[in-house]
Amino acid sequence: MTTKYKPGIQTAGDGWLRLHRNENLFIEQDWSIAAARSLIEQASLSLYPDPDCTQLRLLLAEVYGVEVSNIYVGNGSDEVLSSILAILRKTYNAFSILDVSYRVYPLLADRYAYQLEVLPGNTFSTGRAWTDQHSCLSVIDSPNAITGTRLDYETILALASTEGSFVIWDNCYGEFAGDTLPNPLPANIVFVRTFSKYFGLAGLRIGYCIADAAIIGEALERKDIYNVNAFAQVMALEALRRRNEFYSLSQKLLKARDNLVSRLQDVGFSIKQSSANFVLATHPAFSAMFLQSQLAERKIAVRIYEGNLTSNYLRITVPTPDGLDRLMAALTSIIGASK
Amino acid sequence: MTTKYKPGIQTAGDGWLRLHRNENLFIEQDWSIAAARSLIEQASLSLYPDPDCTQLRLLLAEVYGVEVSNIYVGNGSDEVLSSILAILRKTYNAFSILDVSYRVYPLLADRYAYQLEVLPGNTFSTGRAWTDQHSCLSVIDSPNAITGTRLDYETILALASTEGSFVIWDNCYGEFAGDTLPNPLPANIVFVRTFSKYFGLAGLRIGYCIADAAIIGEALERKDIYNVNAFAQVMALEALRRRNEFYSLSQKLLKARDNLVSRLQDVGFSIKQSSANFVLATHPAFSAMFLQSQLAERKIAVRIYEGNLTSNYLRITVPTPDGLDRLMAALTSIIGASK
Repeated sequence: MTTKYKPGIQTAGDGWLRLHRNENLFIEQDWSIAAARSLIEQASLSLYPDPDCTQLRLLLAEVYGVEVSNIYVGNGSDEVLSSILAILRKTYNAFSILDVSYRVYPLLADRYAYQLEVLPGNTFSTGRAWTDQHSCLSVIDSPNAITGTRLDYETILALASTEGSFVIWDNCYGEFAGDTLPNPLPANIVFVRTFSKYFGLAGLRIGYCIADAAIIGEALERKDIYNVNAFAQVMALEALRRRNEFYSLSQKLLKARDNLVSRLQDVGFSIKQSSANFVLATHPAFSAMFLQSQLAERKIAVRIYEGNLTSNYLRITVPTPDGLDRLMAALTSIIGASK
Repeated sequence: MTTKYKPGIQTAGDGWLRLHRNENLFIEQDWSIAAARSLIEQASLSLYPDPDCTQLRLLLAEVYGVEVSNIYVGNGSDEVLSSILAILRKTYNAFSILDVSYRVYPLLADRYAYQLEVLPGNTFSTGRAWTDQHSCLSVIDSPNAITGTRLDYETILALASTEGSFVIWDNCYGEFAGDTLPNPLPANIVFVRTFSKYFGLAGLRIGYCIADAAIIGEALERKDIYNVNAFAQVMALEALRRRNEFYSLSQKLLKARDNLVSRLQDVGFSIKQSSANFVLATHPAFSAMFLQSQLAERKIAVRIYEGNLTSNYLRITVPTPDGLDRLMAALTSIIGASK
């Protein structure tokens, strides 16, 4: 029995700086509020949504240079992962993950009675996975949902190179890393993305994957008919149309990540090389638990992941410049006061 | 292999009178647009939604006089049905449905490798199901999703009365029928409802069920973490707060259903006794296929369900008074011109 997913400490109420869920803090609420107000009529809330997400899939196909038949849209990337794993269960009874990875994978393994295996190699320590002779199903989060580190393309392609192998590449933070869809996309790779991170629409639940038309066809056949809400379809389409604006925002975010890293280093933290909108940081003198609870007293939420490798690390979402100042003031005071 | 669900004829473009999907046509788009515009900030689209749907479940618990632990909210009632059937698969390997019923049930049976059985009795013809000695899992849509007819409480309770029996009561049209939650609710009945019909929020995907805390606990444990989008949570809560207004709307709708029935009868149709926001009608002189295609030429969409019992019937959503006039003018012209 796997432990239930823990979405992190509760931060109900005002005044919290929420750096614990990897939301995109560079997205101004303003854009989505204004867009929502002007687009809400299009969403026709009293009518069933388009079961095929036609317009959204058309634009995604154009953006990625693939066919509509290569795209599945789901109720968040969690639903996409769930659907694909349900389908692949006919072929595989186990899947492999990295030593540190997205904590939903074990829940999905439970749900579909997969055996869960860990890829050989010490990805957490070395950033590398051993891919030799691997002929199984792998679910790889790169950039990694906990560490933010990124495997190189060669590694991911290598995992898919053996006969009988299959890779679900969970690339939900991929836009921040500049990842692109492998071209051509092998028939045994499913490339998963979301509108929750880069496009900052976590509240609306829109994930998608790009893959061979055969597996996409099975996913479309299997899904709940109206699996993606009408408002999400309209807003995701709008975000994708404005993708140039989001690119500019992401550049600001990446610069802010550099600042975060260097200021955390200034007060003694070691930090994993991140390719996403967050960093994983550990301090030689103060335990992650202590720092987390001290930050929580100051209404700053950060995340710790249980487990040997990760339990002394804080995962910190990249804050805006104001948030960074607040975080650093808090950390300086915690670390200073405890010296 | 079950035939894929067919959502009915395509009605892209303007000018269509859409009477084929049982949407609530008495809901003014206005209310949801105005509510959406004022509530959109609360939905915080860039943040993950509340995984527990806390506020919505609190108010549902109050409305139904149950505990929050008795309520599961899903991405539409289809997801609710899917989750419950996934959980019950550990105990049952077959489930029974009525002879004519919601066409998603066979798809769900396929999805979880259930054998599908049909309850003895001729519900379509007689309105009654035989419940003797039934000790299995039943999924009962009452009011029925295709015919609109309603089983009485005694029948549903009888299906749950044998040891080893279990009933999923799909009551998605129940508010139109004045159905209420059985009190006390037996531990082997799951009562399923939606915001798509009575509250006219089909676009946002919010279904729920009320049941014993043990099975609700399993559903909560199993679900995708963020399965209900933030905007849906906010809007459903608002609709539920305004439930008195929706009651008034539903009274108008029921009166319009009476008008629809009597005007269809005036031109020769026979109609099943409906407890929902639609009727199932057949004409002695004109085939359903002919009428459907003639109506479609006039941009009026109605639905036909394949199958011996239903294929000569039109399922017609209750239109507003204007829509009714347009429908009747079309039918009169079709029937008159073909005499």
